[in-house]
Amino acid sequence: MNLSLIYEPVQKELAEVENQFRLLADSVRPVFPDLYKMLSHILTVGKIIRPTLTLLAGRFYNYDRDKLLPMATASELLHIATLVHDDAIDKADVRRWRTTINKAWGEDKAILLGDYLFAKAGEFAAATENLRVVRLFAQTLETISEGELRQSFDAFNLVQTHENYLQRISRKTAALFAMSTESSAILSQAPEKSIGILKEYGSNLGIAFQIVDDILDFISTEEELGKPIGSDLAQGTLTLPAMLILKQHPEDNPVKRLFENRDKQENIKQAIELVRNSPIVKECYEVASEYCTRACRNLNLLPNHSKCQALVELAQYVVQRRR
Amino acid sequence: MNLSLIYEPVQKELAEVENQFRLLADSVRPVFPDLYKMLSHILTVGKIIRPTLTLLAGRFYNYDRDKLLPMATASELLHIATLVHDDAIDKADVRRWRTTINKAWGEDKAILLGDYLFAKAGEFAAATENLRVVRLFAQTLETISEGELRQSFDAFNLVQTHENYLQRISRKTAALFAMSTESSAILSQAPEKSIGILKEYGSNLGIAFQIVDDILDFISTEEELGKPIGSDLAQGTLTLPAMLILKQHPEDNPVKRLFENRDKQENIKQAIELVRNSPIVKECYEVASEYCTRACRNLNLLPNHSKCQALVELAQYVVQRRR
Repeated sequence: MNLSLIYEPVQKELAEVENQFRLLADSVRPVFPDLYKMLSHILTVGKIIRPTLTLLAGRFYNYDRDKLLPMATASELLHIATLVHDDAIDKADVRRWRTTINKAWGEDKAILLGDYLFAKAGEFAAATENLRVVRLFAQTLETISEGELRQSFDAFNLVQTHENYLQRISRKTAALFAMSTESSAILSQAPEKSIGILKEYGSNLGIAFQIVDDILDFISTEEELGKPIGSDLAQGTLTLPAMLILKQHPEDNPVKRLFENRDKQENIKQAIELVRNSPIVKECYEVASEYCTRACRNLNLLPNHSKCQALVELAQYVVQRRR
Repeated sequence: MNLSLIYEPVQKELAEVENQFRLLADSVRPVFPDLYKMLSHILTVGKIIRPTLTLLAGRFYNYDRDKLLPMATASELLHIATLVHDDAIDKADVRRWRTTINKAWGEDKAILLGDYLFAKAGEFAAATENLRVVRLFAQTLETISEGELRQSFDAFNLVQTHENYLQRISRKTAALFAMSTESSAILSQAPEKSIGILKEYGSNLGIAFQIVDDILDFISTEEELGKPIGSDLAQGTLTLPAMLILKQHPEDNPVKRLFENRDKQENIKQAIELVRNSPIVKECYEVASEYCTRACRNLNLLPNHSKCQALVELAQYVVQRRR
């Protein structure tokens, strides 16, 4: 894995996305200082995978910087908006090593700031002046919200299938990855077949990314992750590692006890230990790797193979990352 | 005021908007029954002022039913989405005589359902296939969220100017009224001057509407309003009637005591009594009427005066309504 191979081709554009964030915050500074403070707090650059995807996927046909830049900005803003609402829902205190909006300003402000960021993301999507992309943007927000709603309704439900899990993460995570690559394929006037290939890449990569996220919630540390570990279990979200615990210890196990509302802290601790000291981690990584392989399998059908390299590296990064 | 004059010209189209709501709920019924229940609960038709405005304002030039219908649906969905989030923020129990989403399903589901409805509204706006309208839609959501954020930051702040109040209600209410009329003017290919006139109508009408809302929160009853009265004061929102109490009783008054965190229930009761038994109600209605007059002042510059009649009646209804 070579990170420079991933970011190097789009470094200037990524700096421009960051610049858009600064401009956005600065634009409200004189008229609404409180909003400026919130925006400055939240518009920090994280892993910026979604704008990177957008920019990398736009290089195969007519690279249109003026349309790809707003779309890259829209995809990261949409992501941040969903995080702000997720943290409000989860009553999370820390994210990306920083206090969450809900912790610092309260849940009410977090709801409204999330709405504001959805709107801003929508404005950037509209700035592409491409109706198909605008529709895709709105449908993606719908899919994400539906995925989050399903997760919320499924909380603390022990009876969930593997299929159920995959559908949920497809909606809540992979949809935005797929939007990032599909929209740039559309904006660079790729033929339909190539749009499909790039969308499939994003979709499978998103599933792999979320599976790794779900593994890291068990095996990482708060210092490395920038937020507490074990938070999925605390929210009653059944992820792949937890499902494997249930499968491999059907009689009695800490996930079952936790979901039956018995000693929360102790059972989360035990579940984490159980996953760490078992082949579950390896099994989950194998599933994630399988989706990365699927993501890349048709990339060779795109023109200019050398440009695929960054996408292949990105897929490797997704399963190797520690945060 | 003649309600039939308002609704009659667009009755069939309003029924079609209702039908879209039913179809939306029905579409998720087999795949996500819990979401179906929430949508059926919330997608009831209220005063439907925003779709009525959209449809009425689209009749002056090329009446384009296929574009106006999705826009009318988008404007009502956007309104409902903001209500769902507002109620979650206010921890309100009742709205439109029904249990709120947050009361029935919890705050978390309310946040996510609101997001889902924003997305659906965006999809309907995109179905107009008009980029200017799509941009206007996103900007309107931004303006509304900013208005709500300002209201949230201003809560329990006694030092607010009349100008401050007007700006806030322009953002949180009038922006959506203005979007409704402006978007249909655009969609019916009105000349820029007429787009401006219809936008101004919507904007001033929205201000009048919100002032009346703020009056009704003092002088109406829970039975008539479909939600508890005095809720603005309970949230620390300084509306026009409350500002006039502060102005007319500068030394000591129930609003001041309430905002200084003294005996909530008693001071809300006293503030309501004070407004009801004073010329404040009349003064506020005069301000609202003034905005209705402003709303209508340039309508005569539009072609086909007879079609203005419904807009004039609607302005009268806005100040005369009891709920």
